[in-house]
Amino acid sequence: MAPPTPTRQRKRGHDPESVLAIAVDVFNERGYDGTSMEDLARALGVTKSAIYYHVPGKEQLLARALDRALDGLFAVVSDERAASGPAIDRLEWAVRESVRILVERLPYVTLLLRVRGNSGTEQAALERRREFDKFISHLVKEAAVEGSIRPDVDPALVTRLLFGTVNSITEWYQPARGASADDLADALLKMTFSGLRV
Amino acid sequence: MAPPTPTRQRKRGHDPESVLAIAVDVFNERGYDGTSMEDLARALGVTKSAIYYHVPGKEQLLARALDRALDGLFAVVSDERAASGPAIDRLEWAVRESVRILVERLPYVTLLLRVRGNSGTEQAALERRREFDKFISHLVKEAAVEGSIRPDVDPALVTRLLFGTVNSITEWYQPARGASADDLADALLKMTFSGLRV
Repeated sequence: MAPPTPTRQRKRGHDPESVLAIAVDVFNERGYDGTSMEDLARALGVTKSAIYYHVPGKEQLLARALDRALDGLFAVVSDERAASGPAIDRLEWAVRESVRILVERLPYVTLLLRVRGNSGTEQAALERRREFDKFISHLVKEAAVEGSIRPDVDPALVTRLLFGTVNSITEWYQPARGASADDLADALLKMTFSGLRV
Repeated sequence: MAPPTPTRQRKRGHDPESVLAIAVDVFNERGYDGTSMEDLARALGVTKSAIYYHVPGKEQLLARALDRALDGLFAVVSDERAASGPAIDRLEWAVRESVRILVERLPYVTLLLRVRGNSGTEQAALERRREFDKFISHLVKEAAVEGSIRPDVDPALVTRLLFGTVNSITEWYQPARGASADDLADALLKMTFSGLRV
């Protein structure tokens, strides 16, 4: 069967961006491993053979989706605001930015957090995620050395718990009727940096 | 094929408790929907027909596993220490107990947190989980009314973030080489109730 012409493709609205967005929704709903090319074709409203006109394969979509999440996080790492000033302020800024990226790229970050390393693509994503974790972990340790973080908690545990809190947002946040990214980040930073108790 | 005799069963160590523990590990590894009775038989080291001697079916195992997690959480709800005293102290106590149960029943709570409502069993578990969330949410609101929680964060958001932090422990905690439940709860409560900043 001949692939649809570019014109017909544009009419149906399947530019690469919308193909990726639809695929990520299907991955998050059915699980990446549980998604077939047929599932993707159905979600896009195209025939099973036409799907190969839009995408070479599932794993290529996964790679693009994971990059979407990771590129956002690495923009935080390389920002100059992460490079100078008291470590505690840089940490707070990095947490706020991570919340913003999580909200802006919610389906992509959700997918990233579910990756378990079942393929080369997943392993590469896990590797980049570990690099980001190291960046945060380093900021926490710097803040501990500077004496701006309470000395009676293990910095490694703080890193886990802090990003546990951030990442858990993917479990319950509903953009349509939820708080804004700024409200979320404010509440999270108040709770974790200043504490709930009056 | 005849089922193994009770004696043979005991020799193999497949009492109901170990069957449940092994099954939950398989569910967590492969996903409940992705687990077949054949997968369970393989994990137990029995033939596919012998598995029905040990368990009537997958969903019955799921129900027992989810109850194991939920019964632990509901012991917190019905404990008298949750019933009197300042709300902030009861909330702190409930969070500490939740961490303890999560660590003690890690595979069961992990399974519970992945349930999405795909069957009657899953829907019943989600319903009980929502009841537990309501109990926590009520404690947070009481603490806010008593003026012991900072007034500039939405109590609903606090509930989500607080249990987001607790539940995230299932994502990274490794009992064999990790902190104890008490160390974890201490660090978590210090971070969320008193804040990281010195």
